[in-house]
Amino acid sequence: MALAFESLYSDIAGRCGKLTVGKKIIKTPALLPVINPHLQLVSPKELRKMGVEALITNAYIFSQSKQYRDRALTDGLHKVLDFDGVIMTDSGSFQLSVYGQVSITNTETLAFQRDIGSDIWVPLDIPTSPAADRETVERELGITMERLAEAKSVFGPGAPIAGPVQGGIFPDLRERAGKEVTDLGFTFCPVGAVVPLMESYRYRDLVTVVMAAKRTLSPASCVHLFGAGHPSMFALATAMGCDLFDSAAYALYAKEGRYMTTHGSYKIHELTELPCACGVCRNHTTEELQKAPDRERLLALHNLHVTLAEIARIRQAIVDGSLWELVDERCRGHPQLLAGYRQLLIDRPALEKTDRVSKRRFFYRGGESCARTEVLRYQQMLARLRLGKHVLVDFDGGSGEGFDDILLFKPPFGPFPRELKETFPVGQSEIPEWDDAMVREGCKGIVSLSDSHPGSTIFVRCSDRWKALVMQEIGRCGVFA
Amino acid sequence: MALAFESLYSDIAGRCGKLTVGKKIIKTPALLPVINPHLQLVSPKELRKMGVEALITNAYIFSQSKQYRDRALTDGLHKVLDFDGVIMTDSGSFQLSVYGQVSITNTETLAFQRDIGSDIWVPLDIPTSPAADRETVERELGITMERLAEAKSVFGPGAPIAGPVQGGIFPDLRERAGKEVTDLGFTFCPVGAVVPLMESYRYRDLVTVVMAAKRTLSPASCVHLFGAGHPSMFALATAMGCDLFDSAAYALYAKEGRYMTTHGSYKIHELTELPCACGVCRNHTTEELQKAPDRERLLALHNLHVTLAEIARIRQAIVDGSLWELVDERCRGHPQLLAGYRQLLIDRPALEKTDRVSKRRFFYRGGESCARTEVLRYQQMLARLRLGKHVLVDFDGGSGEGFDDILLFKPPFGPFPRELKETFPVGQSEIPEWDDAMVREGCKGIVSLSDSHPGSTIFVRCSDRWKALVMQEIGRCGVFA
Repeated sequence: MALAFESLYSDIAGRCGKLTVGKKIIKTPALLPVINPHLQLVSPKELRKMGVEALITNAYIFSQSKQYRDRALTDGLHKVLDFDGVIMTDSGSFQLSVYGQVSITNTETLAFQRDIGSDIWVPLDIPTSPAADRETVERELGITMERLAEAKSVFGPGAPIAGPVQGGIFPDLRERAGKEVTDLGFTFCPVGAVVPLMESYRYRDLVTVVMAAKRTLSPASCVHLFGAGHPSMFALATAMGCDLFDSAAYALYAKEGRYMTTHGSYKIHELTELPCACGVCRNHTTEELQKAPDRERLLALHNLHVTLAEIARIRQAIVDGSLWELVDERCRGHPQLLAGYRQLLIDRPALEKTDRVSKRRFFYRGGESCARTEVLRYQQMLARLRLGKHVLVDFDGGSGEGFDDILLFKPPFGPFPRELKETFPVGQSEIPEWDDAMVREGCKGIVSLSDSHPGSTIFVRCSDRWKALVMQEIGRCGVFA
Repeated sequence: MALAFESLYSDIAGRCGKLTVGKKIIKTPALLPVINPHLQLVSPKELRKMGVEALITNAYIFSQSKQYRDRALTDGLHKVLDFDGVIMTDSGSFQLSVYGQVSITNTETLAFQRDIGSDIWVPLDIPTSPAADRETVERELGITMERLAEAKSVFGPGAPIAGPVQGGIFPDLRERAGKEVTDLGFTFCPVGAVVPLMESYRYRDLVTVVMAAKRTLSPASCVHLFGAGHPSMFALATAMGCDLFDSAAYALYAKEGRYMTTHGSYKIHELTELPCACGVCRNHTTEELQKAPDRERLLALHNLHVTLAEIARIRQAIVDGSLWELVDERCRGHPQLLAGYRQLLIDRPALEKTDRVSKRRFFYRGGESCARTEVLRYQQMLARLRLGKHVLVDFDGGSGEGFDDILLFKPPFGPFPRELKETFPVGQSEIPEWDDAMVREGCKGIVSLSDSHPGSTIFVRCSDRWKALVMQEIGRCGVFA
């Protein structure tokens, strides 16, 4: 298999892994900067020095360029771009989405990508707009799937071809596409045509379609989120199981005078300060950067530093098991990202399946933390406790006479036996002073315990501060001790 | 006046300003890196190149040093340290807090600080531990106040002397200290002895004592938070009105192999990635940094880059009026910071007084956003609306017959007349899909409207989704339309 993916660490549905591309290996999650041969604010060689292991360029531009076509065919893409890492090529699908047509066929672009020595080829899939109606999406998805089948049959199962997942904004079509792509044997699967969703801040829809595609894609597939280039949403996308990002944003934003940060972008002329630790920002005053003759290049470098640092932060969070905390941090940066995050939390039963069992810590970061996978899993685990007939859940001390079992209580998880005091998540969770949201969530643990132990009567002992709230939440299944 | 402060922009109680120190001017908020003459991982000259306008060093170390004492007296501190910016000197109070005694008196240290050419002198105040009982704190505060009075009387009202605010963890004593320091004419006021609170993550107590001191300090005073050096809490402190930070943390952490970030610290050997955009991190692999012979210096540089970038971010947020959003972002980084943030929100009536009237935007970032000053102010403003006898608050459309006034509804603010649709905060606020917390808060606006308009009957029209919640919140004062 020319393209193989292996996950080394995981957290939520995110992975730190390695993607093998022929004889080359790259670490994931990774950002593949987009290189336009006609316009290089930062050269591939410089990108390599910055730690970039893979980039993406557009085969269609090469195929249509008098300047580059023959050189690419003769010398190969790596020599033309002076880059010895992994080079992925897009097929012309992007141009198709912008101009409605391209003067190349599916097999022609794939053969061209092969002939210029691209490491990862992309078929001429149809990136159907999120605005398209169901009929259009189904028809275009059909064409995409035919082309993917054609790619496999013409170039063989071992060719390093990506299998894009389309399906517009219809979750069931994304799900179907994921299944068909997997059935065709693709192991490198971009989720396509999501750029318009990101451009219009429709992160809730983005979460819905990516989660749908992930439901049917093989866990062994490397998932690329096509066109995702703003660092503010990498954590969210990674949490869903996206492994690769690519974007020209660092350069396009730079050309428009836009300064990226992990919490959004600024127009450079609006800044009075340079709120970033990168070399560009620490070595220039705001005015110097605003007026620099090479401002575009400096901004592109800044945007790249920020973006690559975010990839590093995500990898570290996965290794540490603190990705939920990073997602929470990033997704509050814009109300629509928060909407996407909340949508992701609604889908936590799917995420719980892949989430890791033990983590370094659980930091409570506000009401949204109650809906984390660890809480759900803990409350499900409660069904496995062996309990006697009379069970006391004591919010305060954990002592009492006449009970078969006495459990303690830690929000947002719920009741726990003393033996679990040091284990994850009870032992490794840090919470501020109890608040309504977390105690309410903890009460769901009591309800879960009661539901799974019909032979036990649950008594709750808590201070007056919590009585009304507890009664509301567990009313039917508990008794105050 | 040798030390004068002017606020140029403000947000919450935070200020972007300029501190005039003799003939020098520095921008605030600012971090004053601590320089120990015996141990310079990064030289003052390098700090200057990084944009540092002021630093702090310890006069007591100079006064006790065979190597430096005479040179400092002869050549002056600026020449010895090779730094032409502002140099503030500590008196020996730190040593007092660590060793319990020092071999110098209040007037001796001040005279020495004057004689070595320090720009800002600190008296020998007593940094009483937060663990001290009330009697001890009162006694030691008395000594501190005597020494401050002595400083003013011996060196004159124009001497550039700081007036530290002590008082342990007793808010009324901090308040009293703030008043006395102000009455003595000090315009540069460090809040002292808070390092133990920060070291033990007691951010709630930190907020309580700083807010108490701020209540009585003059708004024209420049407030320095003594010993605060971790960038994760600068935003919180700035929001309370602290203008200056100082710390040896960048260097001390580096010596211990600790890597600072705005969301906490890592031990360098635990990192598998370098999650930062700074020049050190982008130019080294993790392993290179871990094994570098000059690792301490590289870590100190990294820590400084992160810290100075955070100061820039804070300044930008104040200019933009988005400091609440930055506080929210940083304070979720640790549950005890969240506790401090929540304490700050409880104190919002005090903050509302200084908060600015109009801001660029209001981004909803979760339940805590409901308690922001802008929401409180908006709901207070509702009292000023002129309303007829029958008032409809319509959650959806804003139309209806037979009402004198029809108001729309935007959570978390509450009801608003159509004329306010484009004004701050209604027009510039972005929220995700309505959630319980924000609608509940918006209902407080309805209650406020009802309370302030006893002659009006308020009718509410909302979808079934919200009826139960609205009834709970406004029950006694509204009627469903």
